[in-house]
Amino acid sequence: MDLPGLSDPRAPAGVAGNGQPVFRRATAGDLPALVAMLADDPLGAGREDASLPLAPGYLAAFAAIEADPNQLLAVAELEGAIVGTLQIAFLPGLSHKGAWRGQIEAVRIAAGQRGSGLGQRLIAWAIEECRARGCRLVQLTTDKTRLDAHRFYARLGFRATHEGFKLTL
Amino acid sequence: MDLPGLSDPRAPAGVAGNGQPVFRRATAGDLPALVAMLADDPLGAGREDASLPLAPGYLAAFAAIEADPNQLLAVAELEGAIVGTLQIAFLPGLSHKGAWRGQIEAVRIAAGQRGSGLGQRLIAWAIEECRARGCRLVQLTTDKTRLDAHRFYARLGFRATHEGFKLTL
Repeated sequence: MDLPGLSDPRAPAGVAGNGQPVFRRATAGDLPALVAMLADDPLGAGREDASLPLAPGYLAAFAAIEADPNQLLAVAELEGAIVGTLQIAFLPGLSHKGAWRGQIEAVRIAAGQRGSGLGQRLIAWAIEECRARGCRLVQLTTDKTRLDAHRFYARLGFRATHEGFKLTL
Repeated sequence: MDLPGLSDPRAPAGVAGNGQPVFRRATAGDLPALVAMLADDPLGAGREDASLPLAPGYLAAFAAIEADPNQLLAVAELEGAIVGTLQIAFLPGLSHKGAWRGQIEAVRIAAGQRGSGLGQRLIAWAIEECRARGCRLVQLTTDKTRLDAHRFYARLGFRATHEGFKLTL
């Protein structure tokens, strides 16, 4: 038998097997890989816990994201492996004559893929998702210590016009 | 008759008449005052349109906010007048072990009330709303040109740890 998507073990259904990444909505099965990527990061190492079974907070957060039509948790998949992630929040607001905004959060690229251009493609995909949803602005914040990220977003056309404030409760 | 909240024309139902602001969810009837406040601002003047009837984008945005249980558009009301506003987006996410965040946007205080302490009380109220929803972080961005706002948030305990990037589509 030669069923498409079944005959080639490198190409299960929905996954490109030609060396090209696929960008798609995350599923519950992606969670361990997603949390491992969040933890494999200079800032994430101190605040995440990738041990299995996953801490209940991650499962509850995934359920809340799934239940909210204005949230899109996405993964980049390459030949069956999760190699990138980000989350988009689609935000309605009165400002700018009632413009929707797309807010990109929690961007991570797997260590082995950094510098490969995957991050740029993932952000470009996210921008198109925002455009498709009618957003007139895309916004994000990055920690002031992530200087490489600042250069990365500037190259993609983002402008660092705002100060980002946080308060821990 | 001496019905509470009806006998005193300065104190319609739900509105304090004692010089104390009330913080509450916005209604459609507040929209003209809200848009006027957004427009009465150095940055907003060039991008908002407070003329009546309101541009359809504002009405559509209000409907989208109302339809989203993770959005709270709030007003500060003082003796029947709308004197402040902000919007809170409650954001689920995997980071920080699945922590919810409260994001404060579009903060405005009516010109006659600036410097009165109303802004501080409005933000304190918003922080409590975030805490009541189980948020572990409150975040916001302000334009780098709003130096007074930076000092204001720093006084309230916020730390300017992030760069805020925007891309106009």
